[in-house]
Amino acid sequence: MKRKNIEDVPEEEVTIEGVKKTRIQWIWTKADGAPNFAMRRFIMEPGGEIPLHNHPWEHEIYVLSGEGEVYTDKERIIAQPGDALFVPPDEPHGYVNTGDEPFIFLCMIPKPERG
Amino acid sequence: MKRKNIEDVPEEEVTIEGVKKTRIQWIWTKADGAPNFAMRRFIMEPGGEIPLHNHPWEHEIYVLSGEGEVYTDKERIIAQPGDALFVPPDEPHGYVNTGDEPFIFLCMIPKPERG
Repeated sequence: MKRKNIEDVPEEEVTIEGVKKTRIQWIWTKADGAPNFAMRRFIMEPGGEIPLHNHPWEHEIYVLSGEGEVYTDKERIIAQPGDALFVPPDEPHGYVNTGDEPFIFLCMIPKPERG
Repeated sequence: MKRKNIEDVPEEEVTIEGVKKTRIQWIWTKADGAPNFAMRRFIMEPGGEIPLHNHPWEHEIYVLSGEGEVYTDKERIIAQPGDALFVPPDEPHGYVNTGDEPFIFLCMIPKPERG
């Protein structure tokens, strides 16, 4: 068994084009022995966003704190703590922090490789 | 995209032998279209426990509230909010609520099928 406290997991700036004020923590990956899926935690500061993008893998998301808009090409959801979101494979999606505090959420993907 | 607030996900008593005062919420499963892994949330009341058990799939855990002991046949960890745990496939593990409040954690598994 392994344990990491979230305070000990490095926060890395997300540098993909169009992403603003957003950091990622890779909590469990293949490097930790995770064979099937990865656990990541996003910290999006006020004013932060991840623009609409698309990929062939799903997201399973759990909102920990703050408030954000999560949108697809079809709908917009205001997500708050205790909300869980499922973004299917290939569905375009994006995020905007709509609050005054960091919007923080777990986001699991079926790719244990970090990248 | 789908959204569920945790208040709307049914809590089901875990009825496996030896389990005490523990409920599970199946948040994302194959029934929701999740193709690769499932998100579940456990609520273990004070006095609750899941005895040592074993299975060939891993757990990726994130503690949301309360305090619990998570143990294997080799070690014991007191887990608190912000702690993430990785239990590898085939490692025997169990849980005890060691606090005065519910011990609540997310637990993802690489089996989207519920059950």
